[in-house]
Amino acid sequence: MPDGTSRFSYKGQTIFHYMGFSTFSNFTVLPEIAVAKIREDAPFQTSCYIGCGVTTGVGAVINTAKVQVGDNVVVFGLGGIGLNVIQGARLAGANKIIGVDINETREEWGRKFGMTDFLNSKGMSREDVVAKIVLMTDGGADYTFDATGNTEVMRTALEAYHRGWGTSIIIGVAEAGKEIATRPFQLVTGRNWRGTAFGGAKGRTDVPKIVIQIDPMITHVMGPEEINTAFDLMHAGKSIRSVVVF
Amino acid sequence: MPDGTSRFSYKGQTIFHYMGFSTFSNFTVLPEIAVAKIREDAPFQTSCYIGCGVTTGVGAVINTAKVQVGDNVVVFGLGGIGLNVIQGARLAGANKIIGVDINETREEWGRKFGMTDFLNSKGMSREDVVAKIVLMTDGGADYTFDATGNTEVMRTALEAYHRGWGTSIIIGVAEAGKEIATRPFQLVTGRNWRGTAFGGAKGRTDVPKIVIQIDPMITHVMGPEEINTAFDLMHAGKSIRSVVVF
Repeated sequence: MPDGTSRFSYKGQTIFHYMGFSTFSNFTVLPEIAVAKIREDAPFQTSCYIGCGVTTGVGAVINTAKVQVGDNVVVFGLGGIGLNVIQGARLAGANKIIGVDINETREEWGRKFGMTDFLNSKGMSREDVVAKIVLMTDGGADYTFDATGNTEVMRTALEAYHRGWGTSIIIGVAEAGKEIATRPFQLVTGRNWRGTAFGGAKGRTDVPKIVIQIDPMITHVMGPEEINTAFDLMHAGKSIRSVVVF
Repeated sequence: MPDGTSRFSYKGQTIFHYMGFSTFSNFTVLPEIAVAKIREDAPFQTSCYIGCGVTTGVGAVINTAKVQVGDNVVVFGLGGIGLNVIQGARLAGANKIIGVDINETREEWGRKFGMTDFLNSKGMSREDVVAKIVLMTDGGADYTFDATGNTEVMRTALEAYHRGWGTSIIIGVAEAGKEIATRPFQLVTGRNWRGTAFGGAKGRTDVPKIVIQIDPMITHVMGPEEINTAFDLMHAGKSIRSVVVF
């Protein structure tokens, strides 16, 4: 299932399972702490997405970075996670919310959720992207987020934040064996390199609190026989999130 | 002069200059913010050291890391900066203060200033050093400090801190062009990679506040004609700090 979530019924209560590795089997054994109760009337087709993508993106802003009113934020990668980072930044009252992507169709997506500026970085060098963002933010961003999983982009995100106090947060999961690198000077001058998993959220208590726009991000709904189409759409950058309904 | 500091007299007040690039000239032009007034009776032979090494080491613990009572701390490199990190950690009430060096004579030095455990890492692989520290700290250190300037050691310091919350702070200045690297997973699992310059201190206000053991670290005092001997002693690992008196 998308985002590794599932919902099932136990003793008459609707149970929501997040961050697990759901299967297509009829039964799943889960640790008790890995399930949370959600409202009976929450539509599964939408709420399943809270199980990973939404909480990770919003949580990275709220729990990990603790973005404050007036901060300048840059988000690299406007997929299902990045768009939720944008929503989190808007929720936190960020000033500039700059989205960076090599897919120009993502500009419209970003603006729907609160992005104030878009940078199409296709063909640009790391140095050029950094220079452009420093210019757009008058010295560098307060917080940058990598939502791509690309280790080169992680470096760009690090170097584009503000000398003296900026924080860069890695959300994306890199390919096995890939490493991030930078000159230590980047950190010695006061920057801070961090990461986040599941947006630093406590699943059982934080998941039920999430109230943001989810419906517009569910671009496709399909049956289990079309699951490979869902992957194709994702790889082609044509979907934000597909939900597979059983 | 050692640590790039100097003291001079202006309108009858003793003026202390820190973090500048002092020369052997008779006159130096300085920005007004780069000088601080210190007590008239402070001995120059000792207080000159506050101008960089002492403040950087202690400040990294107090200002940048904000080490708290009971934290476990690891210091890589027990030279003039590392020993002051140890002093800072003791001041902050750290629990374990582990010193790591490839020079076994530094164990005695570390213990003088509050080090509780020593690890001679000579010939050990990064993995072995990390495993050993994880064992010594029951899961990884709360704070690790690199005071070597070696980018490989910076990585070891990063990977030796606690999954979920550890913070590693780079103090050492690396060779030009050298880069730090790690797997992003190290950060995604909650670790935090930072750096510090001048210990995050505000020179004019923080420098006069430093009250720790300095005298024992001044291992050599010499005239300007012996300045090359001072460098030789440093490179050979035989001095902690040499003070050149005019």
